[in-house]
Amino acid sequence: MSMNILIAPDSFKDSLSANKVANAIRHGVKKIYPEARFQIAPMADGGEGTVESVIDATQGKMVELSVLDPLMREINSFYGITGDGSTAVIEMAAASGLELLEVTERNPWITSTYGTGQLIKDALERGCGQILLGIGGSATNDGGAGMAQALGVRFADRTGAPIPPGGGSLGELAIISMEGLDPRIAETEIVVACDVTNPLTGSEGASAVYGPQKGADPAMVVQLGHNLEHFAGIIKDQLAREVTHVPGSGAAGGLGAGLMAFLDGKLMKGFDMVADAVGLEEMVKVADLVITGEGMMDSQTRFGKTPYGVAQLARKYHKPVIGVAGTLAEGAHELYQEGFDVIMSIQEKPGNLAYALSHAEELLERTGERMARLIRLTL
Amino acid sequence: MSMNILIAPDSFKDSLSANKVANAIRHGVKKIYPEARFQIAPMADGGEGTVESVIDATQGKMVELSVLDPLMREINSFYGITGDGSTAVIEMAAASGLELLEVTERNPWITSTYGTGQLIKDALERGCGQILLGIGGSATNDGGAGMAQALGVRFADRTGAPIPPGGGSLGELAIISMEGLDPRIAETEIVVACDVTNPLTGSEGASAVYGPQKGADPAMVVQLGHNLEHFAGIIKDQLAREVTHVPGSGAAGGLGAGLMAFLDGKLMKGFDMVADAVGLEEMVKVADLVITGEGMMDSQTRFGKTPYGVAQLARKYHKPVIGVAGTLAEGAHELYQEGFDVIMSIQEKPGNLAYALSHAEELLERTGERMARLIRLTL
Repeated sequence: MSMNILIAPDSFKDSLSANKVANAIRHGVKKIYPEARFQIAPMADGGEGTVESVIDATQGKMVELSVLDPLMREINSFYGITGDGSTAVIEMAAASGLELLEVTERNPWITSTYGTGQLIKDALERGCGQILLGIGGSATNDGGAGMAQALGVRFADRTGAPIPPGGGSLGELAIISMEGLDPRIAETEIVVACDVTNPLTGSEGASAVYGPQKGADPAMVVQLGHNLEHFAGIIKDQLAREVTHVPGSGAAGGLGAGLMAFLDGKLMKGFDMVADAVGLEEMVKVADLVITGEGMMDSQTRFGKTPYGVAQLARKYHKPVIGVAGTLAEGAHELYQEGFDVIMSIQEKPGNLAYALSHAEELLERTGERMARLIRLTL
Repeated sequence: MSMNILIAPDSFKDSLSANKVANAIRHGVKKIYPEARFQIAPMADGGEGTVESVIDATQGKMVELSVLDPLMREINSFYGITGDGSTAVIEMAAASGLELLEVTERNPWITSTYGTGQLIKDALERGCGQILLGIGGSATNDGGAGMAQALGVRFADRTGAPIPPGGGSLGELAIISMEGLDPRIAETEIVVACDVTNPLTGSEGASAVYGPQKGADPAMVVQLGHNLEHFAGIIKDQLAREVTHVPGSGAAGGLGAGLMAFLDGKLMKGFDMVADAVGLEEMVKVADLVITGEGMMDSQTRFGKTPYGVAQLARKYHKPVIGVAGTLAEGAHELYQEGFDVIMSIQEKPGNLAYALSHAEELLERTGERMARLIRLTL
């Protein structure tokens, strides 16, 4: 049996996708071990690049469609479907992300997650029985009300009139009606990648912690927090769901809470969600060597970043694991205590970041060759 | 038998001596292979650092003494004696080097190699039967006449009066008398490290090629060249030695020629001289792994630099060899065709040269650890 090498890196930020990183390393290793078999598992943490990684890993496809952005304007958006067609992978930022707005447009009083709901709806239309949702980078503070609206949930004030989009109107919410919710949701598994543990409200809540960066001034932050509290109260009264204190309910302006309350979504760590999606554990089981990596590895890597997650799986199955980084920063070498057998930088000389970023592919390939040459040495 | 690892790097220029480089790597490797035995062979190419390397490699000692500089002024100088006391190691630049003079003082018309002769004489006094001489970086163009004078050779004009020091007076030379030459020279092996192949005279000769950087203007260059031609003619007539066209006779302002003519010196490649002095070949024979390196490795490395020489010896005995560099520059990876099994940079992140130079020791140690961790992996 020839050697089986699993290459499961994250993307190198501002430089290469996870898939390109993995393939560059593979090319280098293959020069020395031409007979080796390779498993390529481009990884992500639920944030940017998650769709691309899962598509690459499962030979899936990208779906492009028009949805409404946080200010309810038509935009081109996308999500992914795995190769077997069973699972949709959505980055909420592709429809409801802060980066979609000019700085001057940012205003969580009126921004909505409606577009994210449209992406989910499209996945239902295409028969996906599982939906994976990364919820980092939102422009919103609407508790996921917009998302739920797009899927048929009605939010009305005390007169029975629909409330307008955005976190500002949640204070007027009096009635939630689930009758119109797309019935396919009941048969669909909704998995939410969430690495933050913020509750919905309070000093560590969605509005207080993330409101300012989304454009809220201090007074608005306070009001948005009250609105979410009111929103959670109605959810509790009318849907018999307690979401306020669930860790992660405050993620993405309360979208975490909304996904739990309206879609019965299950929150999990971003790495775990992607690892499940690509079948990483099965790949590790049959590998003789595991290679992972990320643009930067440092003492923070042990707190849940992709290379750490890969290393823990490798350790579980007693497989050697090598971490490759563009930058090995402060404390990176402490990772030798965290299951890494080797950590390596791709750098070959002193030089600026721009050079390293633009030459990452060839540097990665030579790093792959280098590690293989060293592994081949037996003394 | 535990593993035997030979570490034979050159110095990392502007950063660490070869001995420090070797020991930093050793510390790193030893973390992973605590039972390994290490042979440390700090290397050099006959230029700066040669004395230190041979002393370090042989547990020798430094000798400090006062000699005359190129302008015949007293200065503190040094040379080395190997641990067994048999061999002196001299860098001519320590007595007759260009770096000893201010730029405005540089003048090959009057500069002399007299101090180099004094270093040799001191080594004779101490009973050294072999003298190794590195001749790079000279301030002189005197054909080694000053060096020979210090050892008792007489150079006189047609009136029988001694000629003054420097390449300018060689035109007046009429008589060479070897009678006063220190008799111990006859029983002493003189080995000269010389990596240049310039003949004594002509367009590729000592004056034409190196005269300008030593302070000669074009007219002086021409006259110095004529003087060396005249000098070689008298050597041929009176000593029956033909030195003009011997490759390397033009090294160090003709000191190469003088060492051959007056001391029966043997020219060899700097690397070979140092390798002999430290017993490198015997070390390679018993090693399981050879590690070498230099501050920079590139496509030029294959033209005789230290890592290349070490790699060729390793190849001769079928030992794996790893090259470690601060900078892997253009063409470095072509060295995989030149006998290197692995080449590695010590860099861990994009960054400036100053950082790399000042952190070289810890970076080298971690590189040693990294290579050992990779070698330890068996798939």
